Amino acid sequence: MQHTISPQTGFGFELQRGQSLTITDIAGGQVADLFAVVRANPTDWLSSGRSIDNNGRLHLTTGDILYSNESHPLLTITADTVGKHDFLFSPCSQRMFEMQYGVTEPHPNCLDNLAAALAPYGIPRHRITVPFNVFMNASIDPTGAISIAPPLSQAGDNITFRAEIDLYVAVSACSAGKANNYRFGPVGVAVGGQNNGQ
Amino acid sequence: MQHTISPQTGFGFELQRGQSLTITDIAGGQVADLFAVVRANPTDWLSSGRSIDNNGRLHLTTGDILYSNESHPLLTITADTVGKHDFLFSPCSQRMFEMQYGVTEPHPNCLDNLAAALAPYGIPRHRITVPFNVFMNASIDPTGAISIAPPLSQAGDNITFRAEIDLYVAVSACSAGKANNYRFGPVGVAVGGQNNGQ
Repeated sequence: MQHTISPQTGFGFELQRGQSLTITDIAGGQVADLFAVVRANPTDWLSSGRSIDNNGRLHLTTGDILYSNESHPLLTITADTVGKHDFLFSPCSQRMFEMQYGVTEPHPNCLDNLAAALAPYGIPRHRITVPFNVFMNASIDPTGAISIAPPLSQAGDNITFRAEIDLYVAVSACSAGKANNYRFGPVGVAVGGQNNGQ
Repeated sequence: MQHTISPQTGFGFELQRGQSLTITDIAGGQVADLFAVVRANPTDWLSSGRSIDNNGRLHLTTGDILYSNESHPLLTITADTVGKHDFLFSPCSQRMFEMQYGVTEPHPNCLDNLAAALAPYGIPRHRITVPFNVFMNASIDPTGAISIAPPLSQAGDNITFRAEIDLYVAVSACSAGKANNYRFGPVGVAVGGQNNGQ
């Protein structure tokens, strides 16, 4: 299965254990928020805190595993041409644009995109907590101050995951200005066949 | 209301808008995991990602606000004698002790403590995502590597919050060895009267 997510929209799909998922920054400089829920137990979902704890590092890349709240391995990163992603930030939201950008009209946002992408699977919006923000380039200085720079990803850069359990997955092409250098591109999603142990 | 949380246990209570909550490290060197859920809308709860984003920093202290997933202000930090807390880690859990410490028997843990503390209010365990880990001393180096050191808190050190909305709150005296210098002490909880705007 291959799919191109149009700029500022989202996409939901199922991923079976052993399948691969490749997310590609088609035009360069584009963040893709990734969220996942365990299909057999939808009250167990992607956890930034559990993943950071179990991997012992903030910046996850090839070989690292994304865990659920109940410590189940969900996705292993098997390839990564960029190496800098974020696992701190909530998805951009209508309220975030109002608070931080002074927006007063409806604005495309990842929270609504992810929620709409997961709704057909019966996943309520409130389970969308902290996604794995693919290609998002946030840095922390020693005082804890956070700065957001444009993604390091160039056109064609990508990251591949192996599903460790059957999942509902949502991906959103991010609409936040600062995180995307104020340009919004498409995101490629490719799901491959069995990939166990590779 | 004043309450002393025995080592390695948890405590749940309601906090009304405008009330103050002071958490005290009674013996020194003890982490206290804090979690909160909006009483009028229990599907909206404490969000590490939203709080980090809206405050623009990882280490929150006096003047900073803890937000919910839907960007509602929950708790403002009004005083803080320590200044170093964590908002990255999931609560320690039975599974974490098995994976990271090689534990094979049941072990006291913050996830179970927080879940038990919130159960009487009808809050399901799976909503407990990333607590505000009061006094937890985790540092990040420029590569993203994380190190956990003993808390900076001495006996009597404390942090005070003002509730910005009615909340269900749970606090757990943490049982993780590394985060607590392998000693487990009690945690003081004090809820004060109206404290609006102070």
